[in-house]
Amino acid sequence: MSKKTTESRHSVLSGKKDPETLAAIRGVAADIHKVAIKGGKPHVAFPTRNLSNVRYNPKNGYFELGKGRKSRQLTVGTAKTFAQTLKMMALSKELIEGDDFATKRDAYYQSKNWGEARFDEQVESDTIMDDIEALVSLDGVSREQLRFYPEEHGGAVAGELVIVDRDPLSGDTIEIDCTRQGTGSYTIPHSVEHLGFKTNAKFILAIETSGMFQRLHIHTFWKSANCILVAMGGVPTRACRRFIRRLADEKKIPVYAFVDCDPYGISNIYRSLKVGSGNAAHLSQFFCVPQAHFLGVTPQDIVDYKLPTHPLQDVDIKRAKDAIKNDPFFQSHKPWRDAIELLLKMGVRAEQQALAKWGLNYVIDEYLPKKLAASQRFLP
Amino acid sequence: MSKKTTESRHSVLSGKKDPETLAAIRGVAADIHKVAIKGGKPHVAFPTRNLSNVRYNPKNGYFELGKGRKSRQLTVGTAKTFAQTLKMMALSKELIEGDDFATKRDAYYQSKNWGEARFDEQVESDTIMDDIEALVSLDGVSREQLRFYPEEHGGAVAGELVIVDRDPLSGDTIEIDCTRQGTGSYTIPHSVEHLGFKTNAKFILAIETSGMFQRLHIHTFWKSANCILVAMGGVPTRACRRFIRRLADEKKIPVYAFVDCDPYGISNIYRSLKVGSGNAAHLSQFFCVPQAHFLGVTPQDIVDYKLPTHPLQDVDIKRAKDAIKNDPFFQSHKPWRDAIELLLKMGVRAEQQALAKWGLNYVIDEYLPKKLAASQRFLP
Repeated sequence: MSKKTTESRHSVLSGKKDPETLAAIRGVAADIHKVAIKGGKPHVAFPTRNLSNVRYNPKNGYFELGKGRKSRQLTVGTAKTFAQTLKMMALSKELIEGDDFATKRDAYYQSKNWGEARFDEQVESDTIMDDIEALVSLDGVSREQLRFYPEEHGGAVAGELVIVDRDPLSGDTIEIDCTRQGTGSYTIPHSVEHLGFKTNAKFILAIETSGMFQRLHIHTFWKSANCILVAMGGVPTRACRRFIRRLADEKKIPVYAFVDCDPYGISNIYRSLKVGSGNAAHLSQFFCVPQAHFLGVTPQDIVDYKLPTHPLQDVDIKRAKDAIKNDPFFQSHKPWRDAIELLLKMGVRAEQQALAKWGLNYVIDEYLPKKLAASQRFLP
Repeated sequence: MSKKTTESRHSVLSGKKDPETLAAIRGVAADIHKVAIKGGKPHVAFPTRNLSNVRYNPKNGYFELGKGRKSRQLTVGTAKTFAQTLKMMALSKELIEGDDFATKRDAYYQSKNWGEARFDEQVESDTIMDDIEALVSLDGVSREQLRFYPEEHGGAVAGELVIVDRDPLSGDTIEIDCTRQGTGSYTIPHSVEHLGFKTNAKFILAIETSGMFQRLHIHTFWKSANCILVAMGGVPTRACRRFIRRLADEKKIPVYAFVDCDPYGISNIYRSLKVGSGNAAHLSQFFCVPQAHFLGVTPQDIVDYKLPTHPLQDVDIKRAKDAIKNDPFFQSHKPWRDAIELLLKMGVRAEQQALAKWGLNYVIDEYLPKKLAASQRFLP
């Protein structure tokens, strides 16, 4: 990294050198060094990252990595990959010590200065970054702690929440009041590990569409319901999921998901938010939100509220059947199996804005209050 | 709309009943009424919305609607469409008077209560909304003034800007300081018509990727360069374009675009930001940003900064050749034709994060300062 900015920079991200993460990196390096000086062939055992090495743990409520490992040993054939893995971990160490960060894109381009260890394609550097992430996740260290940040920020927030952050300029503590953003809102940063929270809100409402978020925000539903609104904008980003998880954990408040009633909203958006996804089980401990419950729109709502619908497409039907057949989460919850069966039986889907049939603000005046009065009936 | 919330609601959006927009709606209605009571066949003449009815005006610097019109007359065959058009305008009037808004989705579902005038598909209601938008645009009225809002919000903002808005809760004026958002940022609302601005910033930097925005924000580039950072996140949304336009107009500051060096970044992102797009020329007067200039990454930068590149794909090559052959904007600017020719000759593209090859913060310490010192050399 460029000395100039690094030296002149406040410690804005972690605010500390994060000894825990540095220890995890040094641990791997020490094992390699020990073998190497004995003239042996050093190796690193990475967790296998695929569905075969994933199990659903109903107790803590999310997908977990199994014991499967793939060993990367230093040989003539693996010399380059091995070197790239070590360079990537060295970059992480440098980022922590310089209190900086790199996106996957950044890391790929950084490698162009690694001589023979440079990556030719970003998919190569992404894979190695994912391996390292899975490895350190065994020590409870996340990719954000390695200072590898996602490209995308984490969606919009409005309502009864004060965020405690650090001022990038002065390094001082700064508080951002999410009730004081006017008709605009607060954008979750790429990494939320360093954030603190102050709130008396009763729950977090995680909303699929930005349009519905804007309606609930402009009409200050967050005030009347004493809650925090988060716009996920479809499948929530890593930063958005981590933000909701940390906030819900720290403040011990429930998370209610408000999404379209279709297999995508149920299976892709809600399921990813709550239990994580199979091919990234090593993330679940950080990113899944076990305290999430499904407020709606439910298949039963389509009946109860006589909602306008669209016919299910083949892709919807396939997704719904997969969920019932192959998804350990839905299989372990009968109410979900019944709900998806009902959806398939009706052969239709409904968008959350379909409630506008009864008036643009019916969702605020009737639907949400009625639903929230019976939160024990939310789908698991 | 539901009485309950409407009555209890502050006038947070325009803060007034917007007589200008109501007059535009009443004008159309009056013409129809006049003909109808005489027993004639009322009609409405909508501007034709396609490239054949678009011209590039180098003076004001954007695409404009031509004189082409399509007349919608009330006949047996057009009765339903005609009724739907009037119902849609009535909805707009109701939204203005109730100080509310509706997205395209909302409006579609609202129509489910219009009896015979209900829409069967959203594409039908979208088309009619676009027709009405084109019609009132002749009076200088935008879709946001009709209270038809986009589904998507407008991207993230950080830096030397104070936004003057209205508090949705109290209705009072509220100021949001974009230097006081910590490592997070400010999300532009769906409509920005009612916002005011306070700033001494020298320019607005419109950034393609959220990853680059985060880097410039965390390292407070906005302070050292005295500017306002806006993350467009690819092709900017309506709200993002309108926000930049209103801010640049009101504060008379230039807009510098910082995007990937590829035909998509040049032709889709930058061109849309600056002059608008051909099939939506009626929007240009509101949404295009004529004061925008292209900071980079330029094809010449690839040479000057020895950037890592990717080969141009067929789609890139097609897009670049189209720009030179068919696009009145690029055709009217020789420096752009030369730049695109150079890109085609080299046969490669470069991402803005490719600068990370020289250090993650090379962009802050070297590239941007050097570029900004010679802003007169920016591409038009």
